[in-house]
Amino acid sequence: MCVAKKILFVVLDGAADRPTVAATTPLKAATTPFFDRLAQDGILGIMDVIAPGTPPGSDTAHLSLLGYPVNKVYTGRGPFEAAGVGIKVRPGDIAFRGNFATVKDGIVVDRRAGRIDDTKSLSDAIREQLDLDCEFLFKESAGHRAVLVLRGEGLSPKITQTDPKHVGPFLYSKPIAKDASARRTAKIVNDFTRQVSLILGNHPVNVERSRSNLLPANAVLLRGVGSVPHLVPFEKRTGLKAAVIAATALVIGIGKLTGMTYVPTKGATGHIDSNIDEKVKNVNEALKRHTFVLLNIKGADEAGHDGDFNAKTHFLERVDRALSNLEIDDETLVVITADHTTPISLKEHSGDPVPFLIRGKGVRADQTSVFNEYIAATGGMDRIYGRDIMPVLTDLLGKGVKFGA
Amino acid sequence: MCVAKKILFVVLDGAADRPTVAATTPLKAATTPFFDRLAQDGILGIMDVIAPGTPPGSDTAHLSLLGYPVNKVYTGRGPFEAAGVGIKVRPGDIAFRGNFATVKDGIVVDRRAGRIDDTKSLSDAIREQLDLDCEFLFKESAGHRAVLVLRGEGLSPKITQTDPKHVGPFLYSKPIAKDASARRTAKIVNDFTRQVSLILGNHPVNVERSRSNLLPANAVLLRGVGSVPHLVPFEKRTGLKAAVIAATALVIGIGKLTGMTYVPTKGATGHIDSNIDEKVKNVNEALKRHTFVLLNIKGADEAGHDGDFNAKTHFLERVDRALSNLEIDDETLVVITADHTTPISLKEHSGDPVPFLIRGKGVRADQTSVFNEYIAATGGMDRIYGRDIMPVLTDLLGKGVKFGA
Repeated sequence: MCVAKKILFVVLDGAADRPTVAATTPLKAATTPFFDRLAQDGILGIMDVIAPGTPPGSDTAHLSLLGYPVNKVYTGRGPFEAAGVGIKVRPGDIAFRGNFATVKDGIVVDRRAGRIDDTKSLSDAIREQLDLDCEFLFKESAGHRAVLVLRGEGLSPKITQTDPKHVGPFLYSKPIAKDASARRTAKIVNDFTRQVSLILGNHPVNVERSRSNLLPANAVLLRGVGSVPHLVPFEKRTGLKAAVIAATALVIGIGKLTGMTYVPTKGATGHIDSNIDEKVKNVNEALKRHTFVLLNIKGADEAGHDGDFNAKTHFLERVDRALSNLEIDDETLVVITADHTTPISLKEHSGDPVPFLIRGKGVRADQTSVFNEYIAATGGMDRIYGRDIMPVLTDLLGKGVKFGA
Repeated sequence: MCVAKKILFVVLDGAADRPTVAATTPLKAATTPFFDRLAQDGILGIMDVIAPGTPPGSDTAHLSLLGYPVNKVYTGRGPFEAAGVGIKVRPGDIAFRGNFATVKDGIVVDRRAGRIDDTKSLSDAIREQLDLDCEFLFKESAGHRAVLVLRGEGLSPKITQTDPKHVGPFLYSKPIAKDASARRTAKIVNDFTRQVSLILGNHPVNVERSRSNLLPANAVLLRGVGSVPHLVPFEKRTGLKAAVIAATALVIGIGKLTGMTYVPTKGATGHIDSNIDEKVKNVNEALKRHTFVLLNIKGADEAGHDGDFNAKTHFLERVDRALSNLEIDDETLVVITADHTTPISLKEHSGDPVPFLIRGKGVRADQTSVFNEYIAATGGMDRIYGRDIMPVLTDLLGKGVKFGA
């Protein structure tokens, strides 16, 4: 066999950085012998996941890396979160991310209702008592999180969100397009808000919380509204049978909406304490039955958002050690990259390019032997767009889509 | 503060070159310790200001570098020249660059009327006596130059110019689109030509010039026709309060049309003898009250058009010395680049990429320590488009426009 057969695509979420602390980055400071060995055997480059200077969201970033035309298919994050928590969304559904929150006299006093961690019975009450002017699905997610899906004709994602994103006055939804469906959807959302307030206000869980001096979860704030896009299945686009291994609902949802098999991992938290070894075991298993495995490891992004240089550095070292147990020969193309830069200095995503490496049969291995943002910029792949990497990989498998004759 | 706060954007007009003289370029041959120090502290790359192999005009180049979509907003140079000489143009105005010229028996015998340098009273006569079928503004500019603006409904830039660009038969304007406004505009332009010929033919200034054996300025040739575009103000696009420091009407006009403050400089000529020290003083002042300063220095382009390798090299050395007096710490991002390549060998703009450097807080400083076309191609920015540099810079300021969540 002269070409590689499979692809392992590793996204180190938010792992890239800027040199604002000690003129280095966590990836440069970290000791990562496994990544460096891959770099030595492979080819490096830098990648504008969306476009130079455009900070990607994790949602648009993953879609772009998987080869989907984000400008056409993306309207908001809600649909992917909803799919990620297990709702079988359908194209055209309007989906939101939600937060259980504490609202007092029209003011959001805590966006996370005192970081409440069990909302099952509150959600049951919403499901049982809520009566909206369209079909809906509501599901609780990790911690204070939830998702809402509205279904039916005459709905639109062209509305404002009710989550103020910080402590302050509660927001009502307004249409941002001048059509009947936007007006109607905003009205339904405001109706949702009013009814939820009544349903939760005197719910036994909240009565008990107030008695224990805990903040009541008496509202659900909505954001990330989007219309569920029609996504051509990944297997149809690429010919690859794909699995996704991830902890966050978003990435799981993107995998599900693109038709990938979701492989759950025990102890995968999406945080810096995640069980990466278990993920690696799952990858090794998944590679036996799939030709594409998407592995997302979230912790570095969290450390970036927290502005914690040492935590980010040490997490990347731990990831490197764990990934060294991957069972991969050169018939599996391995990609190591990030979905975006999350600089310690910004605590937010930035538009800096991310480094990437490709190792496996057929790659024009370059002179690099270290994996970080600086060395990657000197690599043989130069600088590409995020949307280009899947065509590059499938072409390396000998499955490039020829244009012309 | 973890990110830079301001941007100084230096355009060394036409400074880039090709190795056709002595296998080097003026930028490579020049001794430029200041640029090299910036290179050492910063990151380099090469840039296709418009597209690979497309020679940019100074107009499209500056618009592109400032982040404007040139394919949508640019129809011709006239509007920017008109704004640059102080006409308050409005979106939709049709504007032209003009040359006072000498026409004899229908033949343009000198496109610059013997390089006449005072056309005030000729222009006064045109303004007083001209009677067109639409509102118009006419203004003399440096030397033999002038601008004409036509205003009102039913006008179009889809017409040919009357300037033959070389000695030869005079041209009449023709419509190049099959609509009434193009036909009408061409008719107005030809009417302008006829009337100007009558107004200037026996003007005392020309009678006197003929008596002194000087070529009479008895015609105004028009070129660079364009419709004044609606440009979203630079501050609205970027959040940056901007000033422009430049000598040429074109760059001043682009600054004005994008809402920048124009800071005039004593002794700034746009030629190789320009007072660069005075420009540097103005930059230092402007940086106190603005968060973006565009500095254009024209001389290298002139030397390129003249095919004078030594003049170009020495001018760049003089610029380097003058700019070393810039008062900038690393909270000011400094960009050094060119708007296009003007090879000594061509004496015209070419489509070669231009080198650029970015120095300041947050940049992933690379291993380069010299600023020229060759070293820039090895830099950490690799190769980007001109339209990408403003998003990259605003992102470095922590003001990137996120796509996704």
